[in-house]
Amino acid sequence: MENASKWSRKDLIGIEELTREEIEIILEMAKSFKATIERSRKKVPTLRGKTIVNLFLEPSTRTRVAFEVAAKRLSADVVTVQGSSSSQVKGETLKDTALNIQALSADMIIMRHSAAGAPKYLSKYIDVPIINAGDGAHEHPTQALLDAFTLIERFGSLEGKRITILGDILFSRVARSNIWALTKLGAEVTLAGPSTLVPERFAKMGVHVCHDLKTSIKDADAVMLLRIQRERQTTTHFPSLGEYTALFGLNKKRLEWLKEDALIMHPGPINRGVEIDSDLADSGRSVILDQVTNGIAVRMGVMYLCMGVSENSLAEPLPL
Amino acid sequence: MENASKWSRKDLIGIEELTREEIEIILEMAKSFKATIERSRKKVPTLRGKTIVNLFLEPSTRTRVAFEVAAKRLSADVVTVQGSSSSQVKGETLKDTALNIQALSADMIIMRHSAAGAPKYLSKYIDVPIINAGDGAHEHPTQALLDAFTLIERFGSLEGKRITILGDILFSRVARSNIWALTKLGAEVTLAGPSTLVPERFAKMGVHVCHDLKTSIKDADAVMLLRIQRERQTTTHFPSLGEYTALFGLNKKRLEWLKEDALIMHPGPINRGVEIDSDLADSGRSVILDQVTNGIAVRMGVMYLCMGVSENSLAEPLPL
Amino acid sequence: MENASKWSRKDLIGIEELTREEIEIILEMAKSFKATIERSRKKVPTLRGKTIVNLFLEPSTRTRVAFEVAAKRLSADVVTVQGSSSSQVKGETLKDTALNIQALSADMIIMRHSAAGAPKYLSKYIDVPIINAGDGAHEHPTQALLDAFTLIERFGSLEGKRITILGDILFSRVARSNIWALTKLGAEVTLAGPSTLVPERFAKMGVHVCHDLKTSIKDADAVMLLRIQRERQTTTHFPSLGEYTALFGLNKKRLEWLKEDALIMHPGPINRGVEIDSDLADSGRSVILDQVTNGIAVRMGVMYLCMGVSENSLAEPLPL
Repeated sequence: MENASKWSRKDLIGIEELTREEIEIILEMAKSFKATIERSRKKVPTLRGKTIVNLFLEPSTRTRVAFEVAAKRLSADVVTVQGSSSSQVKGETLKDTALNIQALSADMIIMRHSAAGAPKYLSKYIDVPIINAGDGAHEHPTQALLDAFTLIERFGSLEGKRITILGDILFSRVARSNIWALTKLGAEVTLAGPSTLVPERFAKMGVHVCHDLKTSIKDADAVMLLRIQRERQTTTHFPSLGEYTALFGLNKKRLEWLKEDALIMHPGPINRGVEIDSDLADSGRSVILDQVTNGIAVRMGVMYLCMGVSENSLAEPLPL
Repeated sequence: MENASKWSRKDLIGIEELTREEIEIILEMAKSFKATIERSRKKVPTLRGKTIVNLFLEPSTRTRVAFEVAAKRLSADVVTVQGSSSSQVKGETLKDTALNIQALSADMIIMRHSAAGAPKYLSKYIDVPIINAGDGAHEHPTQALLDAFTLIERFGSLEGKRITILGDILFSRVARSNIWALTKLGAEVTLAGPSTLVPERFAKMGVHVCHDLKTSIKDADAVMLLRIQRERQTTTHFPSLGEYTALFGLNKKRLEWLKEDALIMHPGPINRGVEIDSDLADSGRSVILDQVTNGIAVRMGVMYLCMGVSENSLAEPLPL
Repeated sequence: MENASKWSRKDLIGIEELTREEIEIILEMAKSFKATIERSRKKVPTLRGKTIVNLFLEPSTRTRVAFEVAAKRLSADVVTVQGSSSSQVKGETLKDTALNIQALSADMIIMRHSAAGAPKYLSKYIDVPIINAGDGAHEHPTQALLDAFTLIERFGSLEGKRITILGDILFSRVARSNIWALTKLGAEVTLAGPSTLVPERFAKMGVHVCHDLKTSIKDADAVMLLRIQRERQTTTHFPSLGEYTALFGLNKKRLEWLKEDALIMHPGPINRGVEIDSDLADSGRSVILDQVTNGIAVRMGVMYLCMGVSENSLAEPLPL
């Protein structure tokens, strides 16, 4: 925890701007929270009296609930403001919505928005911390942090590990944040999938691009699947579901292509029978539910660190 | 409270599988909570630090709010996940949704679902307690328990009491759970209503079936009305509202058919002028609002008992 | 705080029935809460263990969230029951809905309803406090109180101050509550806008009515803008947006018509470029965000006072 004092950001907007050391401070913080939570199944009093607003202007259950649980485990109060119920339908600008929420004496804003850059834009006008919970096709930093946490929990370190991200990468904020996080932590990243979804230009981000499933996964230490979004099937980028599954779905037969101890990851919700078969999703190699559990600890860590910079007066995070 | 230690179930799925003694343990627990709450209007610290997820995949305000209030009176944190906002619309299986909620470090899941059997199915895969808040036409156990609690509060015991359940029984989970609870507690139950809504085959459950209003209620110690669901009027089972009210509606004139001290119950929301007239709903015989209040105590009791089995380490439920 | 003991109302239904002294008790209470909150950014334990139900039968994000934050700052538990999700769609009467909520052992009901008079009607049947959060075109008392608080914070007193309310006044509960509050506190009020939206008959309430923008604002100490409701444009009362903005919109040029130290207020959400230009909304004269912040303190004050009458046993509101 001695490193927590080195954290100097009020906001968490994306992984792109973080240094490796900053990522490691968050992961170290998360590790402490995970240990405490598991030991006692109790809340920690860290953010008692703080009001955190969950501003979800794009629908999401999974991420919203994860942030809500994490905030409550820190003893904060959580107020949820969701999508269509917001004043934005009445013509208010995003900046005004955020300034109003801050004026309500909110201490932190967790924000999901369909437009890339929305949290960054707001962070200039808002004094309290803004945590990006997913903005358009830009970043989803806490997802990448929980993924990295889960991998390090198994591997000890990501240095030199080979991670393959497989699926609908083109517009994926999860992929983008993971590419930044994994490469900064020393992993070798391969992006795999049909060429319409995984364009060559991603190679500029310092990763390999591969359009053949077997080649892309045979040396991987972990395969990170992305959700195939059924709703995107009508676009020209996307093949039919059946075609995708035939070429890139992970099934029992293809399991043989993987190294024996390779891990399987997925940000959820999974489409059984589409991007992954049940045999694999439920196997011992799958760390999908670990990812969910680690998401609580990682978000507690992020909230603690950013609130500390904002307040400059937080007590020690954990009861002794 | 000494009997609480005899409770051994992690989940509350239905009344059918409970023994009479188990039902009585819940009711005894509820009685303690009711007394404490009434005395101080305060929360009890019993479930402090626990996170309870209200998973309502079928819309409901009344039951959802009752569970939320009960959980908060026990000092638990409550996170609500509702119907269409859930990941299920994205093609996730129910089992995956529940495993994910558990992985969020939830300590208990309160679940309403439109499919009979959904909570039972999940309870096999989920380690934390699952409380059924209504599943299809199967059971609504906490409603039956609060009804039994309300009757015993007035009568002392249900042994030999005559209870008539009146109305749309065919697909009613409330009726089904009440039949199990009341008969196990020693009451004599009569089901009444038009033959399309109250088929003879219910007699196999150890109850009387009667299609004449006067006959069915004249010896009753309590008449439990069910809500007439206007939305079902289009089906072939259901007569017109006017016809139903003419034959089976409870009104001032028919009040004379009842014994002088017979109680009137209703799970709400009531349709004034349809299944019951205002004179009766608001009379001294009506215990409708007592049912609502008792629902809080009963749900606190159920949550305390099931969490105790899950944790095997809860403190005494009430502050001394 | 010594004046708090003079407060004798269980409910806050409207400003019309309050005396000047009662209004001042609320504002004094709010001032204490604001000071405490600002000093420590902490919750006060005043309503610990109380359950407050936010019954919003007409959609609203802004006011609902403000009450939720205020209640949580007082350490109360908040349960939200919203609009279409309510039992009212199932045919339950409003009175039954409210009696049921009370029976759930709620300690206070915050209520928004589309029908004028709904909270007043319910307050006769409900024992616990009812706070009106806006009822049809009748009143929105906490909005007027926070407006008065904001003005007094700047001016010290409203005695003799000239306040102009500008815009769509005809059906505005905000205007109505403000007229009562401001005149009772000694201000001179002018209503301004097109004659279709500001009929002469308002003069009976002891205010000036003016249909010329320049005349109405040139001597004002504060101009209180009302939101132009785009959705009302189809009615015969309402001119086109362009026409309204041309004649009554506040812009940089018209700023010269105002006194140098005149304040600009708006209940939000604002329509930039319609009733007010960005230059003005963001200028030093605008107290729009102060209004939002003060709304928390005012609502804390109202809840504290009404709960005190209901309970007759609250401790001192603030930690010493």
